[in-house]
Amino acid sequence: MESKHLKSRADAAPRLVAVAAGREPADLVIRGGIWVNVQSRELLPGHDIAIAEGRIAYVGPDASHCIGEDTRIIEAEGRYMLPGLCDGHMHVESGMLTPAEFARAVIAHGTTTMFTDPHEIANVMGLEGVRLMHDEALMQPVSIFTQMPSCAPSAPGLETTGFEITPADVAEAMAWPGIIGLGEMMNFPGVIAGDTGLLEEMAATQRAGKVVGGHYASPDLGRDFHAYVAGGPADDHEGTREADAIARVRQGMRAMLRLGSAWYDIESQITAITEKGLDPRNFILCTDDCHSGTLVNEGHMNRALRHAIACGCDPLVALQMATINTATHFGLERELGSIAPGRRADVILSPDLRELPVEMVIARGQVVAEQGRVLVDCPHVDWPDHARRSVNLGRRLAEGDFEIPAPVGANQVRARVIGIVENQAPTKALSADLPVIDGLVEAEGETCQIALVERHRGTGQVVNAFVQGFGYRGRVALASTVAHDSHHMIVVGTSRREMALAANRLAEVGGGAVLFAEGEERALVELPIAGLMSDEHATSVAAKAEALGAAMKAAGCQLNNAYMQHSLLALVVIPELRISDKGLIDVTRFEVTDLIESVVG
Amino acid sequence: MESKHLKSRADAAPRLVAVAAGREPADLVIRGGIWVNVQSRELLPGHDIAIAEGRIAYVGPDASHCIGEDTRIIEAEGRYMLPGLCDGHMHVESGMLTPAEFARAVIAHGTTTMFTDPHEIANVMGLEGVRLMHDEALMQPVSIFTQMPSCAPSAPGLETTGFEITPADVAEAMAWPGIIGLGEMMNFPGVIAGDTGLLEEMAATQRAGKVVGGHYASPDLGRDFHAYVAGGPADDHEGTREADAIARVRQGMRAMLRLGSAWYDIESQITAITEKGLDPRNFILCTDDCHSGTLVNEGHMNRALRHAIACGCDPLVALQMATINTATHFGLERELGSIAPGRRADVILSPDLRELPVEMVIARGQVVAEQGRVLVDCPHVDWPDHARRSVNLGRRLAEGDFEIPAPVGANQVRARVIGIVENQAPTKALSADLPVIDGLVEAEGETCQIALVERHRGTGQVVNAFVQGFGYRGRVALASTVAHDSHHMIVVGTSRREMALAANRLAEVGGGAVLFAEGEERALVELPIAGLMSDEHATSVAAKAEALGAAMKAAGCQLNNAYMQHSLLALVVIPELRISDKGLIDVTRFEVTDLIESVVG
Repeated sequence: MESKHLKSRADAAPRLVAVAAGREPADLVIRGGIWVNVQSRELLPGHDIAIAEGRIAYVGPDASHCIGEDTRIIEAEGRYMLPGLCDGHMHVESGMLTPAEFARAVIAHGTTTMFTDPHEIANVMGLEGVRLMHDEALMQPVSIFTQMPSCAPSAPGLETTGFEITPADVAEAMAWPGIIGLGEMMNFPGVIAGDTGLLEEMAATQRAGKVVGGHYASPDLGRDFHAYVAGGPADDHEGTREADAIARVRQGMRAMLRLGSAWYDIESQITAITEKGLDPRNFILCTDDCHSGTLVNEGHMNRALRHAIACGCDPLVALQMATINTATHFGLERELGSIAPGRRADVILSPDLRELPVEMVIARGQVVAEQGRVLVDCPHVDWPDHARRSVNLGRRLAEGDFEIPAPVGANQVRARVIGIVENQAPTKALSADLPVIDGLVEAEGETCQIALVERHRGTGQVVNAFVQGFGYRGRVALASTVAHDSHHMIVVGTSRREMALAANRLAEVGGGAVLFAEGEERALVELPIAGLMSDEHATSVAAKAEALGAAMKAAGCQLNNAYMQHSLLALVVIPELRISDKGLIDVTRFEVTDLIESVVG
Repeated sequence: MESKHLKSRADAAPRLVAVAAGREPADLVIRGGIWVNVQSRELLPGHDIAIAEGRIAYVGPDASHCIGEDTRIIEAEGRYMLPGLCDGHMHVESGMLTPAEFARAVIAHGTTTMFTDPHEIANVMGLEGVRLMHDEALMQPVSIFTQMPSCAPSAPGLETTGFEITPADVAEAMAWPGIIGLGEMMNFPGVIAGDTGLLEEMAATQRAGKVVGGHYASPDLGRDFHAYVAGGPADDHEGTREADAIARVRQGMRAMLRLGSAWYDIESQITAITEKGLDPRNFILCTDDCHSGTLVNEGHMNRALRHAIACGCDPLVALQMATINTATHFGLERELGSIAPGRRADVILSPDLRELPVEMVIARGQVVAEQGRVLVDCPHVDWPDHARRSVNLGRRLAEGDFEIPAPVGANQVRARVIGIVENQAPTKALSADLPVIDGLVEAEGETCQIALVERHRGTGQVVNAFVQGFGYRGRVALASTVAHDSHHMIVVGTSRREMALAANRLAEVGGGAVLFAEGEERALVELPIAGLMSDEHATSVAAKAEALGAAMKAAGCQLNNAYMQHSLLALVVIPELRISDKGLIDVTRFEVTDLIESVVG
């Protein structure tokens, strides 16, 4: 990865040699710490680190010979000196933050390297959006590598995204300086079936010498799994059981164990190491998706690491899973992920290896955070106007757009209903008998309306259907332009008037999430960039997201992660019933299905 | 690496997926073996392997669905299925064999991947010689990667090689398909001193994303060592003590533990794993230098592996050190070094994991050896005529060329004498008082003559000096064009007539080694390619080398590895006293020194 902040290792080498040899002074020396050595898996007290050109020049018992007049000295005073933490796979957009604000939110937690897949923006803005994320990533004081999104749309034929990613796009992106590989290949049925375009994307990645990310979200470890692996994905973070992790590692993949805001997949899989005794080198920790609230209140990779240790993993082994294992996976083991000569000088100082209080963070030789305070700037790319005007409904919506006409002469119909399952991504395909009033099918009781509002091309199209499980009471509507993966607008409501109000409001602010109740706006999270991200601070976004959650609760919704449930209802790759711009989607059969099953009265 | 034998993983993927999914038949299925899994470090009985396109398509409990009418089936019958062995660093020329014949000699021992540094031929033929070795390497049925030689000459200013390697040569070679990195950076004092050319060679390698090989042949683990590491070498095989291995791994290098014909560095270093408990992932086994006799009689990487296990290393850990660790080091972990989908189908069948009898070897899906018998062709490159005529003395030598004139009027002189130390590479700088007869200094007693005969440019130059320790009796001379590292011709003899006979004979046959005694040729090893290698079978070369050893013994030389001692006497990077085309070299002071210290009578 090229970066304006940092000379390449090759270019820095003359200075590094001169510093290590004592001919030139270091920029920074950290003195008297416990060297946490992730290569040998040892704790080595009484060590110094000398840093120059943002890289480590010397690690040894005494760096006195590297100290000159202008060398800054930090006394470690016996604290642990750990390598900065690496997140093996994640989506910045999940934090509702731009890369810059995401970086600012995680730096003080000790995250100095992230492997990010801007899959969401790819669906909204295509290759241009990926490039903007990539460019902003390269501007940060920490290392953010970009995985080129592989699957936009996730379900070709079942949805229309703002843009599509083609094999040619992938081949083009492989030449960008910050691209580290291909983002998770989610279309595993396509790979198993030998889909040419998907195989071509993976081939372009491999030909560029880069890493193909995997995503095999199925419990079947039989023939399908083997066929998927044969296609080329080199890692997978969708495992949830010990057997999943073991199968992936045996097959030569790296098992990425995930602790996101809503993913808890470390505890169930880490037993592959702690109990079954597998070589831990092929296990990696990642977060996948973190909400801003988690980042603000709980942490990031330090949270995942602490959790892994609490699950019984040896702290050094767990640390390897968040540093050198990750670096090795991405072909960066000589560039970062350990405290050793030539590597980026990414160092955490902490007094405790289990709880991991992060007292100081050094990234590329710069003190970027101290005692939780970020000391550096995280610059933004100049987001173009159209990125900030991505919500294009074509017109103002009205109540009438959300009407569901009944078959002529019907008084009652049996309708298909999307059934939310608390704490799970899959939905249930339910049925409900609903009354017809003035020729319109009306939701009632547990059932309310859901609409998919086309927002990329201004077609003015609205697809209406029914959903159960939110528990809204009174006249309520929640609209969101975070609507995985095509990121149209999902509006769920008990009232068509509030649904129109909410949809129009989001169009006004350029996207985000808004809740209307009884004619009033009760909560708003503005996400003006692609309708997905804010360029405000994480604390502000977290506060607004929290207020939205509170407003949902006040409107009667008691679900865990209620907003997330909402935003996943267009995810037409996960069973059983979803909504897309093509209509109601039966995801067990991968086809459009009728909203009205039958006329019952 | 491109190879005519093998589709890239990207190109093979469609077929691999189809085979794993059961839609197309495999080329080969190995059935019912114990899967030796180097990723998880497990033994997994009852597994099948399906192979297509020379790569592994499926490894699992049952490959029935991959079997078609034309699928060859091999019954493993409960034997271990191990990944083919990798040699992490070696010089093909040390076997006195071409790459093709070296491959033929090691295939049946289970070596399927070699990382070779054609350093010797680089000194004789420069970049062209490296390219020929590289091209022949790519023609083989096993995987031979080339490390671009970094140091020709090894000691600039102290010797004249046939050709020199420049940073521009290195940059050019990095684009060749079979180049995996830079060969051992032997000039460690140069790196420590910040030599621009050396740093530029390493930079060119790193910019190409390839691996810089190290060679730090010093016991000093202080500042010099740290400065060397800061320069970029990623591995080192010159360690001889446990502390050497530990220091290298802690500093983020990989420690290569070596068992060559004359190197025994595994036993003393493997305790870093077996006793000190370091994470073994950064340890690699290699051979560095193997004589053809060792290959024929003892084995190759299987010998190193067996030895490591005998030293107390867990067999699976040792196997990782000869497979996946090596592959990972060179950025090839998804290409080879394990039995997993997508990898080159390099598999050994063996009934025992400690003694490692190699019953069958499969390389890239082809059965290449069975019960010690090689079943495939190992093609030769078309070596050009000038490669076969590299011994150019410019004229026939005569007795007079080996005369050492005394200072005018001297009757006895004190001369510097190179002192052989048995079983060690360093020599001693000795003195001897020698008589002057007819104006010439005459060797006597323990002392005999040594000459460095220029053979690259036909200058006719002969540098004469004295050596002690061979023990020759009667009129004997041994000449060799294997003369590390500049590979001129070294002639050692008790008689100037025999010295001239031997030198002229080698010029006649294009190089090698020859022993004359009492006017007769007693043994000859023809090495017609660059004066370094034979394109005969290893068994034939080993037999001739053995005969040479016997002839040396018959002539009075009782040294261990006597021929090797001979061939190292021009190695002007190892103390204390050596010979080069520049004269007698004091290697403690890195300068030319006088042969005659003083006139004593």
